[in-house]
Amino acid sequence: MPDDRFRHGWETVNQINAEGAKRQWDALCAISPDFARWIVESGYSDVLGRPQLPLRDREIATLAALTTLGNAPGQLRAHVEGALNVGLSKDEIVEVLMQMAIYAGVPAAINAMQIAGEVFQARGL
Amino acid sequence: MPDDRFRHGWETVNQINAEGAKRQWDALCAISPDFARWIVESGYSDVLGRPQLPLRDREIATLAALTTLGNAPGQLRAHVEGALNVGLSKDEIVEVLMQMAIYAGVPAAINAMQIAGEVFQARGL
Amino acid sequence: MPDDRFRHGWETVNQINAEGAKRQWDALCAISPDFARWIVESGYSDVLGRPQLPLRDREIATLAALTTLGNAPGQLRAHVEGALNVGLSKDEIVEVLMQMAIYAGVPAAINAMQIAGEVFQARGL
Amino acid sequence: MPDDRFRHGWETVNQINAEGAKRQWDALCAISPDFARWIVESGYSDVLGRPQLPLRDREIATLAALTTLGNAPGQLRAHVEGALNVGLSKDEIVEVLMQMAIYAGVPAAINAMQIAGEVFQARGL
Amino acid sequence: MPDDRFRHGWETVNQINAEGAKRQWDALCAISPDFARWIVESGYSDVLGRPQLPLRDREIATLAALTTLGNAPGQLRAHVEGALNVGLSKDEIVEVLMQMAIYAGVPAAINAMQIAGEVFQARGL
Amino acid sequence: MPDDRFRHGWETVNQINAEGAKRQWDALCAISPDFARWIVESGYSDVLGRPQLPLRDREIATLAALTTLGNAPGQLRAHVEGALNVGLSKDEIVEVLMQMAIYAGVPAAINAMQIAGEVFQARGL
Repeated sequence: MPDDRFRHGWETVNQINAEGAKRQWDALCAISPDFARWIVESGYSDVLGRPQLPLRDREIATLAALTTLGNAPGQLRAHVEGALNVGLSKDEIVEVLMQMAIYAGVPAAINAMQIAGEVFQARGL
Repeated sequence: MPDDRFRHGWETVNQINAEGAKRQWDALCAISPDFARWIVESGYSDVLGRPQLPLRDREIATLAALTTLGNAPGQLRAHVEGALNVGLSKDEIVEVLMQMAIYAGVPAAINAMQIAGEVFQARGL
Repeated sequence: MPDDRFRHGWETVNQINAEGAKRQWDALCAISPDFARWIVESGYSDVLGRPQLPLRDREIATLAALTTLGNAPGQLRAHVEGALNVGLSKDEIVEVLMQMAIYAGVPAAINAMQIAGEVFQARGL
Repeated sequence: MPDDRFRHGWETVNQINAEGAKRQWDALCAISPDFARWIVESGYSDVLGRPQLPLRDREIATLAALTTLGNAPGQLRAHVEGALNVGLSKDEIVEVLMQMAIYAGVPAAINAMQIAGEVFQARGL
Repeated sequence: MPDDRFRHGWETVNQINAEGAKRQWDALCAISPDFARWIVESGYSDVLGRPQLPLRDREIATLAALTTLGNAPGQLRAHVEGALNVGLSKDEIVEVLMQMAIYAGVPAAINAMQIAGEVFQARGL
Repeated sequence: MPDDRFRHGWETVNQINAEGAKRQWDALCAISPDFARWIVESGYSDVLGRPQLPLRDREIATLAALTTLGNAPGQLRAHVEGALNVGLSKDEIVEVLMQMAIYAGVPAAINAMQIAGEVFQARGL
């Protein structure tokens, strides 16, 4: 049963951003394998992997949250990639980040936009 | 032209939460009519009223941002109402708020959930 | 096995603040029983219930985090009670909150101190 | 010498908001007199009481900080009163709070505006 | 009329930090020209360009807000330059940042001070 | 008497992280010697140097606060070193940071964990 949670979480991770997740997993396992496992099971399986909301909608929420927090640029980059992977277009992502100027302030939105811009450029978008 | 921006912003406001917006507008106009007008024009017309993303998706982003901020309970309540008004279901809203436990922490998600619960109860959902 | 996680989490919850947890559980179950269960299993069993750090030390960290967040007064109150329950003295709690003036600013520390003062008074400390 | 710091801090407090400070002092002394004294000496004497910047300018900075934090409504109210006491006009205060919509987001600015509106009304401004 | 807003906003931008603004404008236009334009019109014309408060006072508020946010080092650097450009002295800027230790905590103030120190050094102050 | 405060503060600083403090002191003195002195006296002597709580417990609170703030990586690194210096084990530090996933969100905890991992590696832990 616990293994089912891990397997389901890892599948969800891979749908969003397989490459980024592998890198994150390796880095965290070197410090705290328990924490790395908890993120996959309790985060990606129990929460983000719930079928009640499609991953596309979840990534809108994640982009909004990470832009608002403003202090997790690595995670924001990974989820801009993830948002593209689960079906959001470049224009839709830009729209979500621009909207954050209203809720989290202009600096937070600008900084998120620059991170997104780097992802778009790397993908030739 | 400026009147067009106000009219368009007010229409957007009314699609999201007409009653809440009227109350907010009256309260703000008593202190700073310029600020009240700026919110409608620069916020609701220029940003939230852009056609590039449907209001349903925008409300997902707004719920995520307000839950993450954690210090705007009045606005969160208004946008839980708004989210229902533009087509999100109770279950989808619960899903977005629960997801915020991962990004903004459990207390932020619990507090948002309780505000949403009050809105659901008031609407008999 | 999942039931073990729930049981262990609930035990941990009860060691910290049985009365507060019961109230929180009931309130959350009315909105999202899945989220209520996730907090007990993934929060209190998998993280706070780990034996690597005693609950007294964990409550120091929790008080510091909630004071720094500054937007979760209900949870802070519950954990001032919890801190007393797991063995921190009134003076030690005051010391942790005063220290937060350095890291999170004076207003955050004052507001936490006033919440703690209400708990101390209710307990006749 | 320490008494000089306290005396100087208390003078600064009184220039900003004598009534609010007395209430705050009494409330804090019931919980932690050391912390109450530290705020007067290290906060109001050593920092806010420095002659390098007039209190009017300092209150602009304080209003901006408290609006941005968004979780200290009591302190914000006390400093809207303080800002008026040290020479800022109602219009200048409104201007600072409106500006915060750009940096801290619209909800933070709206919530600060409503607190300021209550102070203005109580003073018949 | 919209062009008047852009022109007025751009003038305001240039009074604060012409060089930094040009760089920011170019970077943002490559990702979202609409957002870049919105910042100039709705931010710099409609809010920061309002005549009710001089730019010197506005930059005090901006420095306080960006120091409190703590996650916008690029914008803080640009506005330390801007503060000098609109007439604040090095000593006044240091004073505002030091004051933020009280409201936003010591780490936020230290990090802002180091950014300001780099600007002062680059200008030979 | 003021010199006693500085001496006591400097002793406390040195118990936590002598090397990091020296570097910080030199950097700050080049910008604002008054602020550098205030941190030692009002921060490390008056607050962190109080005997009511051992430094080990204080570092738990500091790690929790800095992880929650999420925007002070330099200070977090210095206090991971400090936590080791005053007697917390690598495992206890990991436990505090993992716990922050519950209160401050997973990204804040991951980013803190990576900083801690760099300190552990540099010390061969």
